[in-house]
Amino acid sequence: MFDIGLIRVITLDDPEALNCHGHLIERAYPGLSVESACIPDQPEGIHSEELGQIAVPKIVELARTRFVDKDMILISCADDPGLAEVRAALPGKPVAGAGECTVALAMKAGKRVGVLGIVDWPPKAYREQLGDSLVGNYRPEGVNSTLDLQTNAGRAACLRAARQMAEDGCDVIALGCTGLATIGIAGELQRETGLPVIDPVVAMGAFAAYGAAHR
Amino acid sequence: MFDIGLIRVITLDDPEALNCHGHLIERAYPGLSVESACIPDQPEGIHSEELGQIAVPKIVELARTRFVDKDMILISCADDPGLAEVRAALPGKPVAGAGECTVALAMKAGKRVGVLGIVDWPPKAYREQLGDSLVGNYRPEGVNSTLDLQTNAGRAACLRAARQMAEDGCDVIALGCTGLATIGIAGELQRETGLPVIDPVVAMGAFAAYGAAHR
Repeated sequence: MFDIGLIRVITLDDPEALNCHGHLIERAYPGLSVESACIPDQPEGIHSEELGQIAVPKIVELARTRFVDKDMILISCADDPGLAEVRAALPGKPVAGAGECTVALAMKAGKRVGVLGIVDWPPKAYREQLGDSLVGNYRPEGVNSTLDLQTNAGRAACLRAARQMAEDGCDVIALGCTGLATIGIAGELQRETGLPVIDPVVAMGAFAAYGAAHR
Repeated sequence: MFDIGLIRVITLDDPEALNCHGHLIERAYPGLSVESACIPDQPEGIHSEELGQIAVPKIVELARTRFVDKDMILISCADDPGLAEVRAALPGKPVAGAGECTVALAMKAGKRVGVLGIVDWPPKAYREQLGDSLVGNYRPEGVNSTLDLQTNAGRAACLRAARQMAEDGCDVIALGCTGLATIGIAGELQRETGLPVIDPVVAMGAFAAYGAAHR
């Protein structure tokens, strides 16, 4: 068994919510075992630069204390907060962020990548690595945080945004928030638009599966 | 079960040799099922531009006739021969090449990528996508084709080349030939150098595993 430590960047008391991303990965990739932990005192997660900065030392602390003996550490946020810092703190430990994994899969799936997210700009790795392949950033109407995604109105707004992305000529949809993984909407968006959709949590799982196959 | 058609670009009569890459993927990623087929009349595989050009129509033919109903098609060669042509021939069908998958994983694993292969230049995707991250191309002494890898001398030369790559400051080793997957040397190189090593066949498997998780 390949043991993964997964860091949630939103404070979650409910074990089912806490373990949701881990369970997605375990279901998708037999042979991976995921333990999840969340940062304290950030009940809204990260949806601003400032909240991201506050989160970084907490993420590093979790990696160093809870997950130092894991085979791999995953940071379950499309903005990859603390990714460089965790790598610096634990040299040689495989660490991956949801954003960079999504970008890597999106670049293989198409040439015109649209980002569907909850803020008005694409996450860091998407901005820095997609280059000319980035068609644009799409925020579903009325959705401003990961919590808004969990309503019927939020889900419908995501579907409308995805249809718009297809009309605008995107040939792949990269989800720009792991909250979209939480609501498990990638398959539905894929069927609705006919485009490949990259889910950040399942994308991290692919890289972890490679690590497991290959240690 | 997620059904994959895998195209070998070397003519192989022995079923064990033919299925070797498929078995690697099946062992590494439970839930994937791989059927392999090889192109005719190329017993030395592809180790020149000319051999590559001769192979392309045969690869497209295999994809169209044998694998049109598969969930995904993999082209098991680090130079990705026929990849664009198969995509053009079968719109909407997921198709991946060993080279592009290796590059995607290598770019996430490090910033200074060395390519270990059997010719004097890196395969296409490595040249085009690694950019400034490409440290150099390394050919083990005395190795000129995939068949040379299967000798003790060939294996020892690979280990020497990998040590040189580490000394030269590479922080990840991308294997530039699927023949290196056939001889299963990635783990040994990883232990020998302490660097992450990207195996082209196992890399394709990671993308297939994502496809399976996410259809």
